Amino acid sequence: MVEGVDLVYDSEGLKILTERECRELLGSVPLGRIVYTDRALPAVQPVNFVMADGEVVILTSAGSKLAAAARNAVVAFEIDQFNRDISSGWSVVIIGHARVVAEDGEISRLRTLPLTPWSTTEPTHYIAITPELISGRRLPPQKEPPHP
Amino acid sequence: MVEGVDLVYDSEGLKILTERECRELLGSVPLGRIVYTDRALPAVQPVNFVMADGEVVILTSAGSKLAAAARNAVVAFEIDQFNRDISSGWSVVIIGHARVVAEDGEISRLRTLPLTPWSTTEPTHYIAITPELISGRRLPPQKEPPHP
Repeated sequence: MVEGVDLVYDSEGLKILTERECRELLGSVPLGRIVYTDRALPAVQPVNFVMADGEVVILTSAGSKLAAAARNAVVAFEIDQFNRDISSGWSVVIIGHARVVAEDGEISRLRTLPLTPWSTTEPTHYIAITPELISGRRLPPQKEPPHP
Repeated sequence: MVEGVDLVYDSEGLKILTERECRELLGSVPLGRIVYTDRALPAVQPVNFVMADGEVVILTSAGSKLAAAARNAVVAFEIDQFNRDISSGWSVVIIGHARVVAEDGEISRLRTLPLTPWSTTEPTHYIAITPELISGRRLPPQKEPPHP
């Protein structure tokens, strides 16, 4: 990706979003999908989330597969938005380490976030994902990618 | 999951969908997310797809990371649909082997499907995923999961 140039396309002709665009989009939707490994198999689960200090924060029951799998693991997190006939849209993927938030002060701070657990099972854990790689693409593909 | 009983809830209080419900939902949306491994890291990418003979069929450029990663790999494939404030919705995940469709007769048959490549890069490959595990969940969680 070339800094400051946003007319960049991937190998499939889809526009590559800048990191700034990706971070803005991460703050624009309430739902994402966390991707992890569960017993050596790929696993994916939609979750509601909020951004806090540049991290993705989710809330899951302490005994869930997700909570177990996300302990200090490298995970992916995906958001997207497409129009009804999926002729246009965008997606953003981050990759980073997930951690269970254990420090009382941080938990108190996260409790103030507008994040309601989907789970009815107590207790719940906050999981934070620090983005280490961020990428995004936008549809529709360009017929002839311009050369910046 | 108990056959014929649909009031079954997972550890987080979310209703578990039957395999029949999951298969019906797979035929109801045009967009999913394929989950695979790319250079030992979790990877996820939204794709348009169709169901054909019980398989998920996608179309990608032959040189894409996805085409390379999906060769005889075990992948996950996720679909979901939520209302605007994500207070209700559902998700379905399948896990199965992906294969690049190579047989001419099968390719001819797949060409009749309503599947337009997002990529502008030729040539394209059909990738088929055979569901080996299918699971689905529905929101909202129940306050008190009934015991069937």
